[in-house]
Amino acid sequence: MRPDQTVVVLHPVSARAAAGLPAGDCLRDHAPDAPILGAQDRGVLRGDGIFESLSALGTRPADLDLHLHRLQRSARRMDLPELAEPVIEAGVRRALELLGETGRVAVRVVVTRGPEGAQEPTAWVSAAPAADHSRARREGVRAVLLDRGLRSDAGQSSPWLLTGVKSLSYAIHAAAAREAQRRGADEAIFVSTDGFVLEGTTASVLARRGGRTITPPEEHGILAGTTLQRAAALLEAAGVLLEHRPLPVAELEQCDALWLLSSGRRAVPIVEVDGRRVPIDRELTDLLDRGLERPDD
Amino acid sequence: MRPDQTVVVLHPVSARAAAGLPAGDCLRDHAPDAPILGAQDRGVLRGDGIFESLSALGTRPADLDLHLHRLQRSARRMDLPELAEPVIEAGVRRALELLGETGRVAVRVVVTRGPEGAQEPTAWVSAAPAADHSRARREGVRAVLLDRGLRSDAGQSSPWLLTGVKSLSYAIHAAAAREAQRRGADEAIFVSTDGFVLEGTTASVLARRGGRTITPPEEHGILAGTTLQRAAALLEAAGVLLEHRPLPVAELEQCDALWLLSSGRRAVPIVEVDGRRVPIDRELTDLLDRGLERPDD
Repeated sequence: MRPDQTVVVLHPVSARAAAGLPAGDCLRDHAPDAPILGAQDRGVLRGDGIFESLSALGTRPADLDLHLHRLQRSARRMDLPELAEPVIEAGVRRALELLGETGRVAVRVVVTRGPEGAQEPTAWVSAAPAADHSRARREGVRAVLLDRGLRSDAGQSSPWLLTGVKSLSYAIHAAAAREAQRRGADEAIFVSTDGFVLEGTTASVLARRGGRTITPPEEHGILAGTTLQRAAALLEAAGVLLEHRPLPVAELEQCDALWLLSSGRRAVPIVEVDGRRVPIDRELTDLLDRGLERPDD
Repeated sequence: MRPDQTVVVLHPVSARAAAGLPAGDCLRDHAPDAPILGAQDRGVLRGDGIFESLSALGTRPADLDLHLHRLQRSARRMDLPELAEPVIEAGVRRALELLGETGRVAVRVVVTRGPEGAQEPTAWVSAAPAADHSRARREGVRAVLLDRGLRSDAGQSSPWLLTGVKSLSYAIHAAAAREAQRRGADEAIFVSTDGFVLEGTTASVLARRGGRTITPPEEHGILAGTTLQRAAALLEAAGVLLEHRPLPVAELEQCDALWLLSSGRRAVPIVEVDGRRVPIDRELTDLLDRGLERPDD
């Protein structure tokens, strides 16, 4: 019987402690139902850590390099030790191999600051068959705009606000998603106090206006989307211009199509924003979806 | 040999699931070094949960009612199930009893949303001998003001920002504390974008100006400090007026003394704000400290 989830502990995972060790020596298979985190770990006591969610097809992870790069960047922004990317990569491959799934798999990498006083982070990789998001891709989702409370430039002057860092402190994102449900929608899209569209709670925003596409810039304190990076290459290959630029909320009404992009769900069309209908651009949705479906290695 | 830490699991902890059960049946002693949280628990994956830190003298917890009340309020604000307070109280008492300490103890209650799909939260209490903060109380701490990125009224209009909720998503607080260290200070005090003093990263702010004391109001999206509530009673008994009102950053220069109040460290004088000296009010510090030292039951 195939397991329905696998977990691999990464220890040590800091570049310094793992230097010279074969990556395989830093992995330990973990029973998926067994507890993994101590009661004193800052990962749970303060949401003090980082993560990545990625997709795989069978045992082949998609965009692993992009995710490792972003995880390393998050670590730096959070003053965590530099991470041993070969260990994390080996952990991802090991978790996928143990799962032995042939379809789409959801992979998560978690790195916490460990218990008080620890030098070495706590880290693991988990893998499980991915949920089926084909309906969302086909029929689209309804979104509401929710205030993120921050100016678009807040993260520039105040790096301790950790904007653009994929941290474990995602309670606001979860609360915004619940608020969206309460309002009869599927998804929340954060907007800045100075009137710009930022990002979904777990996805990047892409808009089409006439012959060009637009996505909010990283300088607005949003996560650098790995799926967006893939989509950018697909759009370029298709001759569709992609602008990384501020997207005023008021401009949404001029947009001909909108999407949420994430590694788990790929390109999901938005069919409604705060109750206003948005048409589905089937052609571009299909182009993105076909391109994003393929793992890269 | 006395243990240097104890952990008691609370299960079930929702009022609904625990109804009719003796509180003792909902407790399970947990080996303090053994992992407690699953790799899929939303407490670590999204910092999706709440906590309380409280102090005890030996086996007698201080202000337990205030902390239970605030925890319940946090649960409500986060759409967590109503909590069984008798179970949590029994857990706190059990953790303290197992520790068998006679001095000051630091207690923590953690409640997470559990793994995806779970109805019942994951919860535990931990207890350990408290660190010695007498030097901070005697000599004071240096603070820097750091932008919280939010307007003072952000939480009023946008409850999903979870201001005033003691959530597990405290990475920003931890990052601000690191920034304070980087600037050669001990503590960060958050200020709002519209120029008001809010709170420390783990403490309330109290100021004295002439014969009256001032603390920022809860409406500014700050945590309702349990130690502040105790201090309010002490100040009242001593005939010192306490105003809960907006405290403009500019007014700090007119203040004659400043404190950080928290259950773990009680009343700690602030001796420096962004490099500017602030005198220690020894008389009021002693009054607060003596009053806060006593557990309430």
